[in-house]
Amino acid sequence: MPKLVDHDERRSEIADAVLRIVARAGIPAVTVRAVAEESGWSTGVLTHYFGNRRGMLLGALRRAAEISGQHHKTIAAQNDGLARLEGALVEALPLDERRLALGRVFVFFYAEAATDESMRTEIEGYLAVWRKFVANAVRAAQRQGLIDARVKPAVAAAQLVALTDGWSIHALLDGSVMADLNRLSPVRSWIELLSSPATST
Amino acid sequence: MPKLVDHDERRSEIADAVLRIVARAGIPAVTVRAVAEESGWSTGVLTHYFGNRRGMLLGALRRAAEISGQHHKTIAAQNDGLARLEGALVEALPLDERRLALGRVFVFFYAEAATDESMRTEIEGYLAVWRKFVANAVRAAQRQGLIDARVKPAVAAAQLVALTDGWSIHALLDGSVMADLNRLSPVRSWIELLSSPATST
Repeated sequence: MPKLVDHDERRSEIADAVLRIVARAGIPAVTVRAVAEESGWSTGVLTHYFGNRRGMLLGALRRAAEISGQHHKTIAAQNDGLARLEGALVEALPLDERRLALGRVFVFFYAEAATDESMRTEIEGYLAVWRKFVANAVRAAQRQGLIDARVKPAVAAAQLVALTDGWSIHALLDGSVMADLNRLSPVRSWIELLSSPATST
Repeated sequence: MPKLVDHDERRSEIADAVLRIVARAGIPAVTVRAVAEESGWSTGVLTHYFGNRRGMLLGALRRAAEISGQHHKTIAAQNDGLARLEGALVEALPLDERRLALGRVFVFFYAEAATDESMRTEIEGYLAVWRKFVANAVRAAQRQGLIDARVKPAVAAAQLVALTDGWSIHALLDGSVMADLNRLSPVRSWIELLSSPATST
């Protein structure tokens, strides 16, 4: 009897191994050999699923985005509108190993997206999903009277997403920003500042 | 009599040619051959000064940072504190060919800085200089009574720099953000929002 293989599951399993390596040792540590060791699959199997090293990193990017999407669902179920908005931003900050790996693969592909049309389209899609999720959280907070009704959700979302992503990238590149991030938990103050009525213009 | 050569000037001239190519056609268009054509120097001369393609891009990064530093001096001479602060942020937005090239080379090296210690140190240095320049502009605006005295300049500067850089990177990756940037000129509203007294915490 032929063995049944869940290809999606195997792809996810390998992508998770890539993300563990990225969290522990960074992008340069991702080699076909290292992923074979981490995942327990042969280099032949890895090549079959992902082609080459770059294919594995792309698989890791998509897997990281998928896991973030699952977290978004959990966050969206929160009743407190401000906590939901905070969650939608904190999800993208490199505050634990999972999100550190997420940030590192995204910065890696940002550089590629700046020069490659199809990668740009993919990254645009992720950013649009994130902005929409944040805008919905702003609306939820407005319905609860926690954010001024004059604030335009799309404008506040674009600003909050740019600030969060900029801070996240700076934290990956600059030890002092990472230290501030771990010490200060600045997201609530960003929300207060960028969701004030001046954002209605 | 031996010909006198100003090596710094020649390096700048070649780096400027690289930046023109980056502005016009992006990072992938930078090849030793293309730079030779653009600059009028032989590939032998280019290799002598910059080694290889990556060396030319690094030269372009440093040249772009140097030109930004010159613009900072002009901006710092402005009497209106808010105009000075606005200038310190707008300098990093990809609103013309020069700043488009600046943004593209920075995103390219951000990815490298996320994985390479010496590049990270160099990028940290640029970010620190930018934050300090913005913090000084906040102080100048405070002395003129244009920004609340309770605002902490370093905190406001870190937030404004993260928001500006995040927006700039998103504009390079996402056509809708670039369109908003050209249409809305959002920097004054960022300053109003992120330099409010809540930034004193």
